[in-house]
Amino acid sequence: MAGNPPGPRTRQAAYRGNRELVVSEGSVVAPGPGQVRVSVAYTGICGTDLHIFHGAMDQRVTMPAVIGHEMSGRIAALGPDVVDWAIGDPVTVMPLLSCGTCPACQRGHSHICQRLNFLGIDSAGSMQSSWTVPSHVLVRLPIDVPLELAALVEPTAVAVHDVRRGAVTAADRVVVVGGGPVGILVAMATRVVGADVVLLELDEHRRGIAAALGLTVMDPTSPDLAAFIDEWTAGAGADVAFEVSGSAGGVTTATHVLAVRGRLVMVAIHPTPREVDLFRVFWRELTIIGARVYERQDFETAVRLVSTEDIPVRALISQIVPIDEASAAFTALEKGGAMKVLVDCQGA
Amino acid sequence: MAGNPPGPRTRQAAYRGNRELVVSEGSVVAPGPGQVRVSVAYTGICGTDLHIFHGAMDQRVTMPAVIGHEMSGRIAALGPDVVDWAIGDPVTVMPLLSCGTCPACQRGHSHICQRLNFLGIDSAGSMQSSWTVPSHVLVRLPIDVPLELAALVEPTAVAVHDVRRGAVTAADRVVVVGGGPVGILVAMATRVVGADVVLLELDEHRRGIAAALGLTVMDPTSPDLAAFIDEWTAGAGADVAFEVSGSAGGVTTATHVLAVRGRLVMVAIHPTPREVDLFRVFWRELTIIGARVYERQDFETAVRLVSTEDIPVRALISQIVPIDEASAAFTALEKGGAMKVLVDCQGA
Repeated sequence: MAGNPPGPRTRQAAYRGNRELVVSEGSVVAPGPGQVRVSVAYTGICGTDLHIFHGAMDQRVTMPAVIGHEMSGRIAALGPDVVDWAIGDPVTVMPLLSCGTCPACQRGHSHICQRLNFLGIDSAGSMQSSWTVPSHVLVRLPIDVPLELAALVEPTAVAVHDVRRGAVTAADRVVVVGGGPVGILVAMATRVVGADVVLLELDEHRRGIAAALGLTVMDPTSPDLAAFIDEWTAGAGADVAFEVSGSAGGVTTATHVLAVRGRLVMVAIHPTPREVDLFRVFWRELTIIGARVYERQDFETAVRLVSTEDIPVRALISQIVPIDEASAAFTALEKGGAMKVLVDCQGA
Repeated sequence: MAGNPPGPRTRQAAYRGNRELVVSEGSVVAPGPGQVRVSVAYTGICGTDLHIFHGAMDQRVTMPAVIGHEMSGRIAALGPDVVDWAIGDPVTVMPLLSCGTCPACQRGHSHICQRLNFLGIDSAGSMQSSWTVPSHVLVRLPIDVPLELAALVEPTAVAVHDVRRGAVTAADRVVVVGGGPVGILVAMATRVVGADVVLLELDEHRRGIAAALGLTVMDPTSPDLAAFIDEWTAGAGADVAFEVSGSAGGVTTATHVLAVRGRLVMVAIHPTPREVDLFRVFWRELTIIGARVYERQDFETAVRLVSTEDIPVRALISQIVPIDEASAAFTALEKGGAMKVLVDCQGA
């Protein structure tokens, strides 16, 4: 490009295959009609980002792939016809682009569009300083919400969607199986609804974080679990269980703690088929409910819960690293122990 | 008992373990307060009866066990305080005795009571000429319904319950996996609701019976199945699937034919855990719904549908055998080919 004046640049973390996450300078995409350019503040690292890093989604991503979809930031530039937004507005993004024409979209389930374009997986994501997106994916943030907290709106929206899919009420006794960030957010979202919730988690460190948030926690391998559930629910079993562990054992536990007509919400991704006790499903007339991403109303609710700190997401932030250290952050996350790691994309 | 006058006798088919079904005379149980004695006309042989015959439920039944729970008959004697019924009334029985006090009963799900006494499994059943039961399990039959048809009210109530659990509407495209008696009844019950239904069945003979009832039938192993579902549903997939085959392959097929937000009703009993494609459940936000037996309203609906022949159950009756040939009928049924075999308990 010698001879052209250098345009604005975006510093971006791109997956290049084979566990390589390379941070480099790229050209900023100027916002076209209906688009905005966002100065990204923080991008959280999600389990899906780790899967991509591990090569498990190489068939889906186009390398080099700028990943990341849990973010917060401020509008930096507006496309020619964008009128509802102003430069400087704090925003997060609901990273779903639906086709609008497939059967799922036609039936009002555009969040699980059959040709869904998930920003940060199927196209460029937010692990960069300057991200250009269609304005219709923006979600407005209150002016005073700390942007490091707002980066957790997306996983909170997942939890809000899961709880809505499970139709949790204040009268319910709820078991959450798996105490990673999403499991803890699900537990906290059921608590906001008024439900009585118990979180099951194998890892003692994670149990400690959950307990510090005031959650009742148990080790799912405890021999006391069955007796605890029995006493807690007066012999009925739990009304709702959330499988957030992604493990075979988690599926079995979640199935077996439920009452007659109990609901099991499948939150975690199980890449291979799992053995499910269908006799129990039949015998107790259980319902197993698939839950994926979120709808607009879940995002709006999540913005409110994060802003009011009704869901105190700050406790889930283990670390904030500058974007230049993103690769090291991925490697550290794999080792376990951390909850949510944010990548600081500012000033890059 | 020499010296006592011989009381009335009941001819009964009792399972005595080890594939032995012995027909002999037993004493009639005189109806006590709140009870009636029913002269049984017909008792259908159910898959559960075959399981008992095979020894699979030896831990649950008390031998000698008079089995049978799909029946029709007429009231023969009334207990002292029974006022709502008259001798000669045609009846069937909803064979569930609930405890009334367990959490399931307290929550209004007494049909899946946690201490359920299922007549014909947990206590004496209807494969006898004279059966004494509490009057509250009776279900009134129209005066003119042929009693051989009324013996199919119970499996029809199963189908009605399944369809209600699946919330099937006239707008739905429905796939039923498994074309035994219950599968065909489920398919016919969805047709009564107005749904568009396809039945999948491996056995050509059973496909023929279903086709003769006007049902659209397909071989689930056909390479054309996926293309058929795709075209039939305009790329969406089916709204509801019923797993009535009890097979691992049936679970996979039922999961994979469904649309986004599709409902899978688990009708068949899967005694061992099955591999379930939980990724598909997540990806399409499917719901898997356990369904077991029936509630009173399902029985009332089934009586109506059998009586009006809106569900033409006559086509499912392969054979009617006298009670003295019950054991041979069980052996014949095992070989496959037959649909519903009725045991004639009259005049015995």
